[in-house]
Amino acid sequence: MLKIKKIKKENMLNENKRNSIIFGLSTSKKIAKNISELTGIKLGESKKKSFADGEIFVELSSTVRNKSVFLIQSTHYPANDNLMELLLFIDAVRRSSAKEVNIVIPYFGYARQDRKVLGRQAISAKLVSNLLTTAGANRIITFDIHSEQIAGFFDIPFDNLKAYGLIAREISKLNLKDLTIVSPDHGGVSRARSLAKILDNSPLSVIDKRRTNHNESESMFVLGDVKNRNIVIFDDMVDTGGTVVSAVKILKEQGAKDIYLAISHAVLSDKDGVKAKDKLKECGIKKIITTNSISHDKDDFIQYIDLSNAIAETIKHHINNKSITNWFVKEYNTYI
Amino acid sequence: MLKIKKIKKENMLNENKRNSIIFGLSTSKKIAKNISELTGIKLGESKKKSFADGEIFVELSSTVRNKSVFLIQSTHYPANDNLMELLLFIDAVRRSSAKEVNIVIPYFGYARQDRKVLGRQAISAKLVSNLLTTAGANRIITFDIHSEQIAGFFDIPFDNLKAYGLIAREISKLNLKDLTIVSPDHGGVSRARSLAKILDNSPLSVIDKRRTNHNESESMFVLGDVKNRNIVIFDDMVDTGGTVVSAVKILKEQGAKDIYLAISHAVLSDKDGVKAKDKLKECGIKKIITTNSISHDKDDFIQYIDLSNAIAETIKHHINNKSITNWFVKEYNTYI
Amino acid sequence: MLKIKKIKKENMLNENKRNSIIFGLSTSKKIAKNISELTGIKLGESKKKSFADGEIFVELSSTVRNKSVFLIQSTHYPANDNLMELLLFIDAVRRSSAKEVNIVIPYFGYARQDRKVLGRQAISAKLVSNLLTTAGANRIITFDIHSEQIAGFFDIPFDNLKAYGLIAREISKLNLKDLTIVSPDHGGVSRARSLAKILDNSPLSVIDKRRTNHNESESMFVLGDVKNRNIVIFDDMVDTGGTVVSAVKILKEQGAKDIYLAISHAVLSDKDGVKAKDKLKECGIKKIITTNSISHDKDDFIQYIDLSNAIAETIKHHINNKSITNWFVKEYNTYI
Amino acid sequence: MLKIKKIKKENMLNENKRNSIIFGLSTSKKIAKNISELTGIKLGESKKKSFADGEIFVELSSTVRNKSVFLIQSTHYPANDNLMELLLFIDAVRRSSAKEVNIVIPYFGYARQDRKVLGRQAISAKLVSNLLTTAGANRIITFDIHSEQIAGFFDIPFDNLKAYGLIAREISKLNLKDLTIVSPDHGGVSRARSLAKILDNSPLSVIDKRRTNHNESESMFVLGDVKNRNIVIFDDMVDTGGTVVSAVKILKEQGAKDIYLAISHAVLSDKDGVKAKDKLKECGIKKIITTNSISHDKDDFIQYIDLSNAIAETIKHHINNKSITNWFVKEYNTYI
Amino acid sequence: MLKIKKIKKENMLNENKRNSIIFGLSTSKKIAKNISELTGIKLGESKKKSFADGEIFVELSSTVRNKSVFLIQSTHYPANDNLMELLLFIDAVRRSSAKEVNIVIPYFGYARQDRKVLGRQAISAKLVSNLLTTAGANRIITFDIHSEQIAGFFDIPFDNLKAYGLIAREISKLNLKDLTIVSPDHGGVSRARSLAKILDNSPLSVIDKRRTNHNESESMFVLGDVKNRNIVIFDDMVDTGGTVVSAVKILKEQGAKDIYLAISHAVLSDKDGVKAKDKLKECGIKKIITTNSISHDKDDFIQYIDLSNAIAETIKHHINNKSITNWFVKEYNTYI
Amino acid sequence: MLKIKKIKKENMLNENKRNSIIFGLSTSKKIAKNISELTGIKLGESKKKSFADGEIFVELSSTVRNKSVFLIQSTHYPANDNLMELLLFIDAVRRSSAKEVNIVIPYFGYARQDRKVLGRQAISAKLVSNLLTTAGANRIITFDIHSEQIAGFFDIPFDNLKAYGLIAREISKLNLKDLTIVSPDHGGVSRARSLAKILDNSPLSVIDKRRTNHNESESMFVLGDVKNRNIVIFDDMVDTGGTVVSAVKILKEQGAKDIYLAISHAVLSDKDGVKAKDKLKECGIKKIITTNSISHDKDDFIQYIDLSNAIAETIKHHINNKSITNWFVKEYNTYI
Repeated sequence: MLKIKKIKKENMLNENKRNSIIFGLSTSKKIAKNISELTGIKLGESKKKSFADGEIFVELSSTVRNKSVFLIQSTHYPANDNLMELLLFIDAVRRSSAKEVNIVIPYFGYARQDRKVLGRQAISAKLVSNLLTTAGANRIITFDIHSEQIAGFFDIPFDNLKAYGLIAREISKLNLKDLTIVSPDHGGVSRARSLAKILDNSPLSVIDKRRTNHNESESMFVLGDVKNRNIVIFDDMVDTGGTVVSAVKILKEQGAKDIYLAISHAVLSDKDGVKAKDKLKECGIKKIITTNSISHDKDDFIQYIDLSNAIAETIKHHINNKSITNWFVKEYNTYI
Repeated sequence: MLKIKKIKKENMLNENKRNSIIFGLSTSKKIAKNISELTGIKLGESKKKSFADGEIFVELSSTVRNKSVFLIQSTHYPANDNLMELLLFIDAVRRSSAKEVNIVIPYFGYARQDRKVLGRQAISAKLVSNLLTTAGANRIITFDIHSEQIAGFFDIPFDNLKAYGLIAREISKLNLKDLTIVSPDHGGVSRARSLAKILDNSPLSVIDKRRTNHNESESMFVLGDVKNRNIVIFDDMVDTGGTVVSAVKILKEQGAKDIYLAISHAVLSDKDGVKAKDKLKECGIKKIITTNSISHDKDDFIQYIDLSNAIAETIKHHINNKSITNWFVKEYNTYI
Repeated sequence: MLKIKKIKKENMLNENKRNSIIFGLSTSKKIAKNISELTGIKLGESKKKSFADGEIFVELSSTVRNKSVFLIQSTHYPANDNLMELLLFIDAVRRSSAKEVNIVIPYFGYARQDRKVLGRQAISAKLVSNLLTTAGANRIITFDIHSEQIAGFFDIPFDNLKAYGLIAREISKLNLKDLTIVSPDHGGVSRARSLAKILDNSPLSVIDKRRTNHNESESMFVLGDVKNRNIVIFDDMVDTGGTVVSAVKILKEQGAKDIYLAISHAVLSDKDGVKAKDKLKECGIKKIITTNSISHDKDDFIQYIDLSNAIAETIKHHINNKSITNWFVKEYNTYI
Repeated sequence: MLKIKKIKKENMLNENKRNSIIFGLSTSKKIAKNISELTGIKLGESKKKSFADGEIFVELSSTVRNKSVFLIQSTHYPANDNLMELLLFIDAVRRSSAKEVNIVIPYFGYARQDRKVLGRQAISAKLVSNLLTTAGANRIITFDIHSEQIAGFFDIPFDNLKAYGLIAREISKLNLKDLTIVSPDHGGVSRARSLAKILDNSPLSVIDKRRTNHNESESMFVLGDVKNRNIVIFDDMVDTGGTVVSAVKILKEQGAKDIYLAISHAVLSDKDGVKAKDKLKECGIKKIITTNSISHDKDDFIQYIDLSNAIAETIKHHINNKSITNWFVKEYNTYI
Repeated sequence: MLKIKKIKKENMLNENKRNSIIFGLSTSKKIAKNISELTGIKLGESKKKSFADGEIFVELSSTVRNKSVFLIQSTHYPANDNLMELLLFIDAVRRSSAKEVNIVIPYFGYARQDRKVLGRQAISAKLVSNLLTTAGANRIITFDIHSEQIAGFFDIPFDNLKAYGLIAREISKLNLKDLTIVSPDHGGVSRARSLAKILDNSPLSVIDKRRTNHNESESMFVLGDVKNRNIVIFDDMVDTGGTVVSAVKILKEQGAKDIYLAISHAVLSDKDGVKAKDKLKECGIKKIITTNSISHDKDDFIQYIDLSNAIAETIKHHINNKSITNWFVKEYNTYI
Repeated sequence: MLKIKKIKKENMLNENKRNSIIFGLSTSKKIAKNISELTGIKLGESKKKSFADGEIFVELSSTVRNKSVFLIQSTHYPANDNLMELLLFIDAVRRSSAKEVNIVIPYFGYARQDRKVLGRQAISAKLVSNLLTTAGANRIITFDIHSEQIAGFFDIPFDNLKAYGLIAREISKLNLKDLTIVSPDHGGVSRARSLAKILDNSPLSVIDKRRTNHNESESMFVLGDVKNRNIVIFDDMVDTGGTVVSAVKILKEQGAKDIYLAISHAVLSDKDGVKAKDKLKECGIKKIITTNSISHDKDDFIQYIDLSNAIAETIKHHINNKSITNWFVKEYNTYI
């Protein structure tokens, strides 16, 4: 009797798998493949063409009728093309009678423009949220989004998984003594503090950068003591790297020892012909620890943590109607 | 010819006034009256009854047909009654053929619950935003809202005016030397920094409070130097006052001189029979500087800045199709 | 073969149970517990905190992912707090990936304000309906709502169960002879007539109360003969009891014998320090027959009919995809 | 100075007229023409074709760009064609950049199906409300709608004008002594009572018709005394007339004197080849007093009250931003 | 093991059937019955009454709780009554807790008005699409709709099945040599070309009819050679038949041999007392090949292709989560 | 008196201008400037930044409070960037309290994907329409959109102006004798016929290109006679030019004389390093006549018709509440 029951549960889980399908879009082909292998869920086939005028055409080769569909796409460079590809896929999936359209966005672009700094600006992150919902998304899964408030830009379920739990694991392996976590600016203090708490409750420092006057140069202050401390600068993303380079300079001036950079998303764009990665290496950072939410070439300087497993587990919990929160908090010692 | 033109403009402005009407709801009768007098816009009459079972009934005595209506209501204690009264008024105004339903919420309650701290929580601030929009609001005006991202919870125009500009003016009058602005916790750093910038670019300190373990007592750290400094603790609101009392204690331990408290909204609830105000007075704060977004009795310990003029000007700019941003930033040296 | 099939159906029904969960909110903890026991559906756990300023915070402790969730809450005194708690729970459930959000509201408050009596009033019942839908409700179940038209305020399924069928059963047990059903005012005639029809087609009387002039006292007329008749006054709810007391007086003047009060919902508020219940007892009513849609202390004067079983059966029919109408009409001799 | 001001106001009123336009649809060509003459607002031209398969085609010949448009159409027989014509016109007006789309529906069809009498029925009145809103209506004006709750089926402004005030005026002219107002069934008691109140607070009677058993014939009771009384039976509409004929019979049996029929809407359909009007005449009704919300041929037996003036005044109040409620209640001694 | 698995799949398919129900509305009783027999899905029972004033009342006799419901109705003559019946049924089904409301519209009326030919017209096809969605439709299935763009008038899944594949099969059986497919006007060229392609890539001709001047008679040109060719005129529908009669005349003048008419939908209305069918017969058409999307009496001149099987297969594919596209394209050599 | 009236009207028109503002986005700076000069409406200032990762940031420098805003942007290459810029601008304008957000899209990209050619494709044109509406657009103005049905993808006013009227004027100036208008494929027949009608009712030819088999080469047929005819090939757009080059070849083979190409939108992309323009020139086309909906460098081979005047007049008609249809049809001898 017990055995039969066990088999039946297995059957049900297999049924849930058969009723699901995963599509990896342009930025996330490899992660999608990993997830398919880890979960046993079918990897859907699709076509995507880019026309000479920049328009994108999409078509699903696999049927999605009454299936739980998972589209995986980060919306980094080229941000608008990747976003539009995602929206077109959602439209195609919705019109093809999917049961639910789940969107996994490892790196959620346009998140920095989450409020009006001055009047008459767009709230781009809200616009993007509206676009995703309008196109037909039923659920969003992302990692370390720039503002957790963006969950409230949606009325559909939105799970922001905390990649910093995975990052903390890697930092722990470095066995850094006298560790201080540094927020490179005033906006990232809560984020840095969360990391500090799970890293043996390490102390926190904050860099306060101000441009006192339009013509003067900017001045930097370090709140909290960094002398003779090993440093992990933590932020959700680094784009061209300017702020971090300045931070490293002042930290060194104030007597910091080794400096590491931990970031959830390695945007790392080029600017004026200079690669962000080169800039960061040259300024004296020992190593960057980040995730593969954004694809780059392999590199010794940058250590990539693969998110495939975390996404795969999340999808498995979802399709088997189990709590993602309970699992994630326990597994990674973070809040979801 | 020139003279006629001038008269015509005046006529137009008068016409705009005649096409507007202001209603003060339960929490804001006095502010509404002030605004009416300052702007020359008619103060609408209305009835509100509370039934024995807690239900509220509202009726407008003045016609609002094709008028720009301004409803003024803060949503502090009792939060649900004040919110429901506002929603019912919006419903009544919308059904009565108003041209536009503008909502002025000097203190926007439920703003602290702006994200999920753990899974399976409500995002109350988004719920409230949805309720306001569904009821029929066309535009929201508020002051120093807890998170600026809440603007993105709406798709209607949302102006978050910066009361800290008014607060900075009052602090300046105190002529405090060696001034440091303190954020009482990690979540308010950006807010405190904004105030510091317009107060002669004063230095910033941050209090990092942690509960290291479930059974241990919490520990507090002060990032940045406060010794021999005069202090203004700045936050958007203080409810029962516990965090501020702890902050004052550690600041004094570290040698701070005079300590002032600046808050945008004086929620100041009672807890366990103790008044927040008394608690704050006793812990050694010299003075509280706040606005009248929430009504309390007059008091020497608390200095209330009247928002009536700022709201009146905002309404005048709006009905006369002039930029609020341009005026506000210039007037108060802040960003809107 | 037949036996196996039977087992399989049972399995399916058990599966349906496992995919459902019930939460009792503040007003309905006990009813929810009863229903859980009657149906075998899990009773979910949750947290609710009320802050000093009246704001409510909610969190679900049990997972609801892909489950049919049933929230049970009456929205009587304090009406706004109970409604807001319900809306926050709906928001939390919706954001937590529930399959469907079913709301059971044994007493649906704000239903009396279902139309504009004069211009420029709110239609509060519609506002509340919009709020429930906006928050994320997918289905409403209620009892003897003030106006059946309120079903049309929603575009989601809305089942108004007829508690008067249960009430009629209890009245039958009283074995009243020469029974006349009385509507205490012109608005309740259809309701009283429905009860009269299933009580052996008893005759009907209507009380027509009018205030002839602003300064004069009101006059009351009884349409239909009540002399030497035993009376059951029937209404959907009694709040402060004034109308019923007047009705009893005129009925007695016109020679009525024993007078009972049957009401679907015992709102029974206090007014000016007088308890509605005391007022009704003193005016000569022999007994009140009502439901436990609203919780009060036990009492000999008031007989409470437990709705738990009716709700439990309704939920069971729903999750097992069976008609509620067919069952309810047959069981209680009423229309749903 | 005063004179100039007066002229300016006149100019403004003329401007409001110029910015408005009225279209009479198939059922209401004549009323629309009357209203245009009474208000001075332009009567718009339009084309309507009915194709061989029943499809309707509409086109506006007059521009409506940025105008307040008033479409006038009753939705009586053929109900579906008239409704669809109205929806198509709304669609055309909305797509043609009108400022607002006001719909005047003197007789609002499908209003009787305003709730589910049994499970699994449509709530047709809500469906129709949704269709009107979806097509693009911004405001509804109607007369004596079957249920006032239907206002809550909309979230746009909805004015239900009380035609019974006009009807009361005509009844007054009859100088009937010993007058009793009769509701022909339980559903119309509140309606009849409203008429009774403005007719010198006349007494009220109610007819309670019941079909005791499926095979037995129905029995009728009259609540309230009608002996030697002159009678006005009042209802919002009469369709085939069966209920009224039965009512007249029982009223005569109980000694009523002259019997009049007052109805807001003369639906008066044929059934089984018998004209409703003939049936009513033959059963002994002296006269029918009704409005021209539905067009019929002139007749001595039926007295039509022209609604053109009431609609014209309503439109004038609306476009000049004046309260309709205040005017209507005062003018007709009713509530709006 | 294999055998058990097979049985289990069968069980699942049976389960899917049991969770589905089909309702045939007024125009499609017979097709619905066929489909029920072909699929084994239950044929639901319902009531429909038409009142004297044209209003329709609907009620479902069978429960639809949590079922996949399929409503089948063509919206031809009388177009508005059939459309309104469909909308009312959708409303009833939605309010009765159906799992999904699938609408099969073999002939989708109002599709010709799919754009504004001149300013200030309605886009009737979009209005109808909006009405269906608003009423509660979740999915639309139709055949050879006038414009494929109408799929984009919806945001719900919309499958336009290609009846011309079935029609091509019948034409093939005629073994016509020297076959040319003719589009009777400029708007049908793509449609005629699609048929030509699957009929051995037959040549195409187009008739260009122009009214050169308001007073002159119209002139017709034939693009492409028709001399000594057997002709199939192909169009999606023929209403009164005038255009086809003119086409036949010019084709004969230019030496065409036998002329057949293939149409997806036999609207075939009467005009001025003349039957479209008679007109077409008399002008020299040998035979009409069409579908039974619209019901007519049997006839030798018109050959009806039964759509029941195509719809039955579509429904079976849908409820068993299989691709409709893949099956349909393969089965009928067309694109879906 | 007459004179004053005239002045007053002028004042009103000036007032309408003052209440309007035009913004030219990245693709349409010059057209916007032209329109501002032609209409006298202010040209708004704005900032647009493109970040290294492709994200766009926008900010309005000019206030738009209560103004009729006109955003001008074509959505050609790079299609996604231009579309996203437009959406962000709409979001910013909407949040800044504009009165109405009018979008002028001279070339409306993504319009070709207006239906599903096979199952499981996106309907990209509908997605884009939904995105524009969701972002906050209130009205769309475009030219010669690929399918006129796209107007029905919106529920907001949508004016598709007919650029072919302007093109016809230019063709007339060429004084071509024996002119035939050619549609390069089956989908453009109606479009080509519209041009033919206003060019002295010229004859029409259609090219029917088919790929008979997957491995065979395609074959082309010309319907209608082109021998010794001067040819204008007309289409709404040409992208890489392949279809036109093939058309020219077959037309020449069949004896056509001079061949011109008229296109509404000169997309003219490069493909495989070959410029579309060069390809078209080399194949023997004498001249291309098109509009400046898409900006290219000046060129003798291509004649650009400036749309500025047509847009300017459209805007003027709109803000002055005059019919665009009436004016456009009269001015350009086309239907709007």
